[in-house]
Amino acid sequence: MKKYLGVDIGGMNTKVALVDENCEIISYALGDTPISGGPQAEIALIAEILKYLDISLDIVHSVGIGIPGPVDLKGVVHNPPNLNGWGNVGFKKLFTEYFKYPADSIYIDNDANFAAIAEYTIGSGAQADPMIMLTLGTGVGGSVLINGSPIRGENGFAGELGHIVLNPDGPRCGCGRRGCAEALISHTGIVRTAWEILRKDKGSIIWGMLDGEFGELSPKIIENAADLGDPAANKVLDITANYLGSLLADLINIFNPERIVIGGGISRWGDALINPARKIAVKNALKHLAKNVKIVRAKFYRKAGVLGAAIIAMKKHST
Amino acid sequence: MKKYLGVDIGGMNTKVALVDENCEIISYALGDTPISGGPQAEIALIAEILKYLDISLDIVHSVGIGIPGPVDLKGVVHNPPNLNGWGNVGFKKLFTEYFKYPADSIYIDNDANFAAIAEYTIGSGAQADPMIMLTLGTGVGGSVLINGSPIRGENGFAGELGHIVLNPDGPRCGCGRRGCAEALISHTGIVRTAWEILRKDKGSIIWGMLDGEFGELSPKIIENAADLGDPAANKVLDITANYLGSLLADLINIFNPERIVIGGGISRWGDALINPARKIAVKNALKHLAKNVKIVRAKFYRKAGVLGAAIIAMKKHST
Repeated sequence: MKKYLGVDIGGMNTKVALVDENCEIISYALGDTPISGGPQAEIALIAEILKYLDISLDIVHSVGIGIPGPVDLKGVVHNPPNLNGWGNVGFKKLFTEYFKYPADSIYIDNDANFAAIAEYTIGSGAQADPMIMLTLGTGVGGSVLINGSPIRGENGFAGELGHIVLNPDGPRCGCGRRGCAEALISHTGIVRTAWEILRKDKGSIIWGMLDGEFGELSPKIIENAADLGDPAANKVLDITANYLGSLLADLINIFNPERIVIGGGISRWGDALINPARKIAVKNALKHLAKNVKIVRAKFYRKAGVLGAAIIAMKKHST
Repeated sequence: MKKYLGVDIGGMNTKVALVDENCEIISYALGDTPISGGPQAEIALIAEILKYLDISLDIVHSVGIGIPGPVDLKGVVHNPPNLNGWGNVGFKKLFTEYFKYPADSIYIDNDANFAAIAEYTIGSGAQADPMIMLTLGTGVGGSVLINGSPIRGENGFAGELGHIVLNPDGPRCGCGRRGCAEALISHTGIVRTAWEILRKDKGSIIWGMLDGEFGELSPKIIENAADLGDPAANKVLDITANYLGSLLADLINIFNPERIVIGGGISRWGDALINPARKIAVKNALKHLAKNVKIVRAKFYRKAGVLGAAIIAMKKHST
């Protein structure tokens, strides 16, 4: 049975998985993404993980590598914001040279596209057409699959769904605009909303839960406080669900998707956040478009990227 | 030389053009879209126009028909909001029965898709990939062409770019949400913005230009007043350019388009509106996406729909 390697380079860690033709993970490990040394240090880390897993690239039919940033149509990485010292990098070339592995068996893409492919092929995406994947984590990532393939745009950069403005008077986004989805419904955005509410609500039980460790405020704590009936936490939830619902309605109107899959850490906040957001989306989208859409939580969480990378390597290299 | 018929059914009038293989219009006429009698009355009008133009369908190779509303993948029209008494209509069947014209030579689609195809093939779209068409008129319509074909979505309804929310605190849109593009940068939206400004500015020269005929306030009058340096008119312009620029930035981030074509009556407001909106879009979109995009005015205005309808009839029926 042929074997495929999936690599998922993240801002925090790098995951590597060996996957078989049935999309089953044979072996898996992760290591800390180097904070210095750029792409060369990353290559060395991958070599180290492969050694630890006792994987020889001789037995690997093809390789998929996910990058947390823009990747153009030639596989060149463009200034990934969370990878120090990368700039514009022909990562495929580096990989080929270091491992003596054939370049035409390597597939490099944005991590959001790979996560979407994993959900589409063996997850909650159920091969829907179109399928939209929205990843709510540190940032907000996106990918739109039409007939199972990500829309690419002119240069390969399409699908930046986190940079749709939801409120022009909202907080400043890393991209420079105000009120992008990423500034409002990412981990960071939700925490920022919570601080705004908490500043005006000194009675919230969240203050006690933090016990002076203000850096510990997280969506998880807000969820717990909301479960306990805390009005401040529920307000954060309402605001976040409204923004997420509005983004989903926009996406329904633009793409007429069969299915929207919501992944990333925030998506685990299921009943309290995704359910109200789904209702808001269906109420707000145009009726003939809202009628049939399914909005579901992702099946995969940490392993979506490596699975998708291996699946693309498999699909591309068998055709 | 083969001949193709383009029909463009609008809320106000219905246009019919006979077009040759070089996309040249051989004959053209328009009539008032019937305000009652539904699709049957519309068929009768088309028959009347054909008689007036002395066109026999025997010489027509294929027919394209544009509808101002949702058309599904089977060509069924779904409740076009500006056509009285239509509901859900199998218009192709009606056309075939009335004219004894073969159903497989008739192509029915949303008018925005046809306008986009006209610009793509022989207009300002220059066969860009992806190309986005944004039509600013009474409403805001849209179409996204990937590799020259409109994205369809699950049911054929994709591309409702007028119903992306630009400001959640904005005015109520016809669709029920607040602050959709259609509620802000359509003809109606701009006039609404102008009234808000004028209410607070009794010194504006627009009051004199209207001379008590308040129903006459139009984007054209605002443009004229802005040309004369009226601060109120320039404020309307700024607000509108900001919203249009923000929508364009969203679309750049989502689609990584090669080209965005802006059509419809409002687009003729070129230097004063489109130029500042273009600058705002490029400044606000993600850098790697904004770099290469071209934002241009449409070549066609009133005849985009009939031309696109005839071109689709030509393309589809020759393959």
